[in-house]
Amino acid sequence: MQDDEQLTAVGNEISESFKAAQKRSDAVLEKLTKNPDQYTMLTGDRPTGRLHLGHYFGSIRERVQMQDRGVHTNIIIADYQVITDRDTTEHISDNVLNMVLDYMAAGIDPERTMIFTHSATPAENQLMLPFLSLVTEAELHRNPTVKSEMEASGHALTGLLLTYPVHQACDILFCKANVVPIGKDNLPHVELTRTIARRFNERYGSKGPVFPEPAAILSDAPEIPGLDGRKMSKSYGNSIMLGASAEETAKLIKKSPTDSERRITFDPVARPQVSALLTTASLVTGRSPEEIAEEIGDAGAGALKKYVTASVNEFLAPHRERRAELAKDMDYIHDILAEGNKRAERIAEETLDQVREAMGMVY
Amino acid sequence: MQDDEQLTAVGNEISESFKAAQKRSDAVLEKLTKNPDQYTMLTGDRPTGRLHLGHYFGSIRERVQMQDRGVHTNIIIADYQVITDRDTTEHISDNVLNMVLDYMAAGIDPERTMIFTHSATPAENQLMLPFLSLVTEAELHRNPTVKSEMEASGHALTGLLLTYPVHQACDILFCKANVVPIGKDNLPHVELTRTIARRFNERYGSKGPVFPEPAAILSDAPEIPGLDGRKMSKSYGNSIMLGASAEETAKLIKKSPTDSERRITFDPVARPQVSALLTTASLVTGRSPEEIAEEIGDAGAGALKKYVTASVNEFLAPHRERRAELAKDMDYIHDILAEGNKRAERIAEETLDQVREAMGMVY
Repeated sequence: MQDDEQLTAVGNEISESFKAAQKRSDAVLEKLTKNPDQYTMLTGDRPTGRLHLGHYFGSIRERVQMQDRGVHTNIIIADYQVITDRDTTEHISDNVLNMVLDYMAAGIDPERTMIFTHSATPAENQLMLPFLSLVTEAELHRNPTVKSEMEASGHALTGLLLTYPVHQACDILFCKANVVPIGKDNLPHVELTRTIARRFNERYGSKGPVFPEPAAILSDAPEIPGLDGRKMSKSYGNSIMLGASAEETAKLIKKSPTDSERRITFDPVARPQVSALLTTASLVTGRSPEEIAEEIGDAGAGALKKYVTASVNEFLAPHRERRAELAKDMDYIHDILAEGNKRAERIAEETLDQVREAMGMVY
Repeated sequence: MQDDEQLTAVGNEISESFKAAQKRSDAVLEKLTKNPDQYTMLTGDRPTGRLHLGHYFGSIRERVQMQDRGVHTNIIIADYQVITDRDTTEHISDNVLNMVLDYMAAGIDPERTMIFTHSATPAENQLMLPFLSLVTEAELHRNPTVKSEMEASGHALTGLLLTYPVHQACDILFCKANVVPIGKDNLPHVELTRTIARRFNERYGSKGPVFPEPAAILSDAPEIPGLDGRKMSKSYGNSIMLGASAEETAKLIKKSPTDSERRITFDPVARPQVSALLTTASLVTGRSPEEIAEEIGDAGAGALKKYVTASVNEFLAPHRERRAELAKDMDYIHDILAEGNKRAERIAEETLDQVREAMGMVY
């Protein structure tokens, strides 16, 4: 009973904070459209594998748009977050370099967007120490995303999984980002970042605030299902990699499961597999899934798959071409990353100096 | 009942691990005496106030001995640990600089002993990230020292108080210290450091171990009571500061409480206040407290206090003289710290490169 009441209270609190965040998101987006150069954005990815179509439509496309609008854009490749819930960093170098390839093939311009990794930016990481002092263990525990990630991992909660939202606050605040585009799941992280910024400023900002309180920009990108209608996941093998060949993509789509009904209709609840194929085609063509379903009609799953394959491969062809071109000179990719890391560290050192000054740690 | 059994189990586990640590400590001390230059030592202090006689006899004297024996000695001034359980860094700069003064006045030679601060060594702090991934939250919680510090602080457990033993592992391992002189209370921290070193080597050390498993050197220094027989504490005003003047010291000893019995005897249980004064005199003169008590006899507390004052001030006179001399040139003290920080950061960067290499985070 008490638990129920608590849950309801937590539920209300979350939904109140979600409404406030949505309002803030809308207001900021409006202002950002008018004055993009007053905004600094931070987003990133964990290099646990290759980027796929879900990443493209879920976040990368938006990052390119922000960059092209003139927002100061920053992308962290969160290599230390790979080990929040696993014991190995296997293939990490490969994953990181391939991410840079995909970012750039998708339109990220390293002259305008800073791309960097955690492991190469000590001054950024140092912010963990003062920031960890600004949150209680109870607050860290209350984070629903951490809880669900722990459950999904099947591992005991590591110190790093518990505290990585504080590390995200370091990512966001070291470069004084004031906008963070996220999915709903990551709202608790941005809320924690706002709390940390506020508390730091309250405790140590007698000469003025050091950190902005960043606003989440809540993505309205639809949740993109895997080819089989389940959540996209490496272990399900149900995602179309941006860097896969046209043949690999054709094969993957061919073996994706459908149902026994011949007529193609868009019905995500009753027919998740067929609908996932339609959603995929819809995203890459810009047509509505219903329209595509209507067009295929009684031609069945085979025809649908042919259509999906052709449209995905057509959509990805220029990306893959740019990617292959870039991959010919991996030294250049290494340089891009080295340059981004150097820039990030320079910014982090400036911020760290302000932090030391505010805390009186200048000897 | 179950709780009792658990407590007994935990008690046994602690005492087993204590016995093993004591054995390791004895063995290492023996080897260290023969080959001091094969040993690297790390110790440190939180700059929450000035250093007092308890620090001198509890640790500083031993550090000087280690340095003079030829052990590679390192002292961390743990400035970020000031905020594990408090909301302010007031006076921190003053405390840090005064620590350097006291170290040097006590015989620490910055040419042979590296003195540095957390806030100035980002590469050291970065080790927090990989190390946090190597411990579970449950392990962090099991640390009895963290628990008692939290209770003593009266604050909610902060993220930093929970994780600072991992930060201590960074302090110890970044410079590959293989010996850590500690009091019994800090044994859990060294045990955690050993665990972190072992797990890192197991997971990422396929080309050989990156970190040593350091041994605790268990101090046999007696617990030094405050002048009033209670634990030495800033808030009790019962400690003799190394940097206080002879007059301040005389005043402090004069107002320290005793009991109504005229005859002076050494009996720490029944007469904690008189015995604390005797212990203090014993430490600074090298005589036994019983002998001093006998000598004072029926002359009473007044005579005892005179003796304590004279002997403490005599003992501290050369320290205070060196300290005053050093304090004339604070620029030099700033330089000592800047040089130590630079050296520490250089060592940390080397270690961090090995860590990146071992984890495959080289892009």
